[in-house]
Amino acid sequence: MRTALCERLGIEYPIVGFTPSEHVAAAISKAGGLGVLGCVRFNDATELDRVLDWMDDNTGGKPYGVDVVMPAKIPTEGTPDDLGKLIPEEHKSFVDRTLRELGVPVPGEGERHDAVLGWLHSVARSHVEVALKHPIKLIANALGSPPPDVIEQAHRHGVPVAALAGKAEHAVRHVGNGVDIVVAQGYEAGGHTGEIASMVLLPEIVDAVGDQVPVLAAGGIGSGRQVAAALALGASGAWMGSLWLATEEYLQTMPGSTAMQTALVNATSSDTVRTRIYTGKPARLLKTRWTEAWEAPDAPKPLPMPLQNVLVAPAHDRLHEAKEPSLVSMPAGQIVGRIDRVRPVAEIVAELVSGYEETLSRLDKTR
Amino acid sequence: MRTALCERLGIEYPIVGFTPSEHVAAAISKAGGLGVLGCVRFNDATELDRVLDWMDDNTGGKPYGVDVVMPAKIPTEGTPDDLGKLIPEEHKSFVDRTLRELGVPVPGEGERHDAVLGWLHSVARSHVEVALKHPIKLIANALGSPPPDVIEQAHRHGVPVAALAGKAEHAVRHVGNGVDIVVAQGYEAGGHTGEIASMVLLPEIVDAVGDQVPVLAAGGIGSGRQVAAALALGASGAWMGSLWLATEEYLQTMPGSTAMQTALVNATSSDTVRTRIYTGKPARLLKTRWTEAWEAPDAPKPLPMPLQNVLVAPAHDRLHEAKEPSLVSMPAGQIVGRIDRVRPVAEIVAELVSGYEETLSRLDKTR
Repeated sequence: MRTALCERLGIEYPIVGFTPSEHVAAAISKAGGLGVLGCVRFNDATELDRVLDWMDDNTGGKPYGVDVVMPAKIPTEGTPDDLGKLIPEEHKSFVDRTLRELGVPVPGEGERHDAVLGWLHSVARSHVEVALKHPIKLIANALGSPPPDVIEQAHRHGVPVAALAGKAEHAVRHVGNGVDIVVAQGYEAGGHTGEIASMVLLPEIVDAVGDQVPVLAAGGIGSGRQVAAALALGASGAWMGSLWLATEEYLQTMPGSTAMQTALVNATSSDTVRTRIYTGKPARLLKTRWTEAWEAPDAPKPLPMPLQNVLVAPAHDRLHEAKEPSLVSMPAGQIVGRIDRVRPVAEIVAELVSGYEETLSRLDKTR
Repeated sequence: MRTALCERLGIEYPIVGFTPSEHVAAAISKAGGLGVLGCVRFNDATELDRVLDWMDDNTGGKPYGVDVVMPAKIPTEGTPDDLGKLIPEEHKSFVDRTLRELGVPVPGEGERHDAVLGWLHSVARSHVEVALKHPIKLIANALGSPPPDVIEQAHRHGVPVAALAGKAEHAVRHVGNGVDIVVAQGYEAGGHTGEIASMVLLPEIVDAVGDQVPVLAAGGIGSGRQVAAALALGASGAWMGSLWLATEEYLQTMPGSTAMQTALVNATSSDTVRTRIYTGKPARLLKTRWTEAWEAPDAPKPLPMPLQNVLVAPAHDRLHEAKEPSLVSMPAGQIVGRIDRVRPVAEIVAELVSGYEETLSRLDKTR
């Protein structure tokens, strides 16, 4: 399981693993892939700096990357309090009422739930500044091309930039903007995703930009067979997210996540939903009583980015603390149907590699 | 490009091509695949009989199959006139108004547009009766398992039965009912389709029933790369529909279809929509002004099967006769984005085969 991307990024297998957990990211890198740490959870860039110090000490010199959330166009900006004033009362009362109806415990006095500021442009920029002081090998942007000066800044540090694309025309635009690696994110993927499924999207993006940049396949990949399918479709590697959520290492970073992991293990491939309720843009989440509440006839329409996340982030914290699998709010792809237990990262990587080899041997017999 | 399915069906390549055109079906079979003739357009079984006589004379002894539309549970039955009485006035007037607003010509006096009776259980049964008098090698059912006595009847004639499945649990049920081949129909497919994309669905179905029956991959397949991906995911072959609509042979059966073919050539992978307006069950269609009209806030909700088709079939005929690409009503998958011209069937098959071989050579270099 080796492509030109391996040389380019200095990795053994063309497996790029996105995760908000530094323990998972380090384990992916040590297992021969490229761990990519999601930065959106760091409201304070100095906290990210500290975690990247930990990465530098715990990846044994193996390459790793970071993922920021940065729209090319600078959206509404401001402090959470400023932004909070833009949120209609109808939305606030819907969230309060829903949490009450779902039986979510009320936070104790003095417990405060911060908004997730990583969705703000200024905070994402501070993530880039900090990350470039570390020996990162990739900056990925979950919202397409970052602004031109951010791409230039990364390139000055010799760091390639990856951008997610849900349509071939987006991929063409990214490459025109100087993006070095395109992540083709299919409909079945977790998180922000478009309407075109990987089977169709991936060769379209490869045909559009594959002669200029490597294309990674994202969406629906959780086994060596699926990595082989992605490479057959023209990808230079796989970008995976959902599978790493159900790992032992994830619990090391987020010890309160056993309910979320139980929800992942229980979910079938039918138990996800593509909705705007997480960030304001369509993203695939685990289907739970929380997502169902937003589909009720009396539910308000989700707000635009970044307001929707400012609205729901404190609710997500409370849902998380309820420690109840049916109340989880978590981005996840249709591949969750394949998650049947919590495992160490290295076991997943080993299975991807052996499954890939078995698939190629099986295909040999069709000649 | 050879799997165990080739022996089983007596074909050269594991390409099964669904088409309502006998000219296309015969060309697929002659090119080394298995042409499967869709029967739903035959209101009168004697017409099907005549067309299958033509197939027998024009396939050079190569195997072919038929596709019927038969729910396991017998739905509302009756003559079109009976069924017409069950259709609310609101729906009838919406269709009339929409056709008028879209500028669709009013049919001349004496021109009659029949409902498509193939959706009726009794008519589908008559298709099976007639087809079994011909040397068919497959009966496929677009709506899952046919009733048990139909499966038995096919087996008495030595004809295997294939059934479409959009979830692993459906596939398990089909095999329990005696179905011999499962067609795993992904979200991206044209026609009736579920919500799980091929990349995820196919290995799930293979894991569930692949040790008992061959699984065909349907949805998103239009190139040798995609056939290779499907086989990597565990399929024994590919089931394809959309690509054959843009063939020269299709025009031989349906000479009035140039507007439809123009619409297919113009469409991108974003130009389809999954909707209940065609049959009452979710099916993916080309996105046109007709499908958009049904998404307007004032549009009524589609009726259940078979009433919705009784309602819209005459409208579809009128849309077809308008010969205007933006007014086409046609099931098609996301793979339409790959259709860039009208070609002979043999050219498509040859490209699938050569693309498949190239893909396997490319994958060899990853070892």
